[in-house]
Amino acid sequence: MKEQFVTYIRNLQNTITSRLEEIDGKSTFKEDIWNRPEGGGGRTRVIENGAIFEKGGVNISEVHGKLPDSMQHYFGVKDADFFACGLSLVLHPTNPMIPTVHANWRYFEMYNQAGEIVDQWFGGGQDLTPYYLFDEDARHFHQTCKTACDKHNTSFYPKYKARCDEYFYNAHRNEGRGIGGLFFDYCKVLEETSMQDWFNFVTEVGNSFLDAYCPIVEKRMQLPFTKTQKDWQEIRRGRYVEFNLVHDKGTLFGLRTNGRIESILMSLPPKVQWVYAHNPEEGSEEDRLLKVLKEPKDWVLL
Amino acid sequence: MKEQFVTYIRNLQNTITSRLEEIDGKSTFKEDIWNRPEGGGGRTRVIENGAIFEKGGVNISEVHGKLPDSMQHYFGVKDADFFACGLSLVLHPTNPMIPTVHANWRYFEMYNQAGEIVDQWFGGGQDLTPYYLFDEDARHFHQTCKTACDKHNTSFYPKYKARCDEYFYNAHRNEGRGIGGLFFDYCKVLEETSMQDWFNFVTEVGNSFLDAYCPIVEKRMQLPFTKTQKDWQEIRRGRYVEFNLVHDKGTLFGLRTNGRIESILMSLPPKVQWVYAHNPEEGSEEDRLLKVLKEPKDWVLL
Repeated sequence: MKEQFVTYIRNLQNTITSRLEEIDGKSTFKEDIWNRPEGGGGRTRVIENGAIFEKGGVNISEVHGKLPDSMQHYFGVKDADFFACGLSLVLHPTNPMIPTVHANWRYFEMYNQAGEIVDQWFGGGQDLTPYYLFDEDARHFHQTCKTACDKHNTSFYPKYKARCDEYFYNAHRNEGRGIGGLFFDYCKVLEETSMQDWFNFVTEVGNSFLDAYCPIVEKRMQLPFTKTQKDWQEIRRGRYVEFNLVHDKGTLFGLRTNGRIESILMSLPPKVQWVYAHNPEEGSEEDRLLKVLKEPKDWVLL
Repeated sequence: MKEQFVTYIRNLQNTITSRLEEIDGKSTFKEDIWNRPEGGGGRTRVIENGAIFEKGGVNISEVHGKLPDSMQHYFGVKDADFFACGLSLVLHPTNPMIPTVHANWRYFEMYNQAGEIVDQWFGGGQDLTPYYLFDEDARHFHQTCKTACDKHNTSFYPKYKARCDEYFYNAHRNEGRGIGGLFFDYCKVLEETSMQDWFNFVTEVGNSFLDAYCPIVEKRMQLPFTKTQKDWQEIRRGRYVEFNLVHDKGTLFGLRTNGRIESILMSLPPKVQWVYAHNPEEGSEEDRLLKVLKEPKDWVLL
């Protein structure tokens, strides 16, 4: 399963970065190969100052070794070894009419001292963070997520859509980070679902990413925007930073376990503003977005 | 003590904001009075888009009531009531040759069910975050801190200087947030030191703030700067955000206990950049700053 999924994310990274470069037309991804002293490493690919993408990263990593103490405690195990691999991506477009997108697909194995697998699971998801809300884009993104889920289990989309709204939530602002998508974790063997079934599901979602996001980029990339709209995007990007640094378990885990900082924090937007007590005008497009972030909508029939 | 310190911080807020408005010459502080539903409130004063100060806040608050659960747990007490008050300030100048400054002076009381004080302490400090390092500014700031400390106890400056370097540290970057100053907490009654002695010390530091910072502002405010130097400032401001959102206990406590978000996060800089794997040129001024942040210096004789 390990080899199968590693091969999958390596290929997916290639497929995704090629397609994004094609869309961008100006910048290309810069690659950094890095090694983790305790075992494993990664291939970080970052694009900056593109025609479409102001900043973005599409990273894979495969790390292994002794499970860090903080995680032993978290999982309630002792002296365990682990293997983890995954693909993480975040794209921050220049044009505020194009949403920011985040996606992640990962696989985890835990071993006893004899080197036997004692636990294993998949996790991941993909979610959208618009600055201006086009309902048809939200519907398209969610419909693509749902179609991928439904091929495997019709209970998945409603469940993982709800978890996504719950997880990507800025509790200190009482608002969602974006308009959601899918979020799943600890996908383990069940009576009716094997690890191979989970692999098929997770890769189905991974394969749906470009179909979920690229049509939105292509539809909005030519739209004009004003300085005020760009400012609004940069203010909202501040909320993205707040979520990632205050609430996101993946980011905090990386920071606390001596992960590669630049690969972890590639998710942070290129230019950000914090304006004191900024509130959009009642009834404006900006205000409409905030209202939706405060009460997640069902974008497609569940 | 409570009334004495509340009166002090109210007056100090007036003194500080008046002097800063005088220096700025263009913008003035905007005031927001707010109430905390569970008891108390505050007076937030924010300046934006000034001639000198791109953004800054000088806030006071006095809050009281039942000690929040998370804090009962933290202090190992049950069913305690509390009172806390303090002044917090952060100033982000436009010109990257002027350092950002942060200061805070606070007082805390804890009560049993009979309403008797069971614990009380002062805390606070002031610290400097330069983008370009002028050694004489660092020496001036630290010397002012030391002079204030020495009037009370010559052991204070070395102790609280070291704590400041320790506390304002971005562990995930292996570098200090800035070049330090003073940081002290849990200043309680000791054999040789009464609460009144602590009050005298803390207010001495509070009174030294304008002398520590304003001469630096006035010396650097006319210096020219380039777009590249401004970019460097905005990148370094990103590290400021990382510290405040990932490590700062005060910020996280505020976010977790339903504090007034806009008053807590007024500390975040107005415009910030995150550039992937940005490294200044070896031997440049930017590089020299980083080296000092990685190994705190003694700016004055201890």
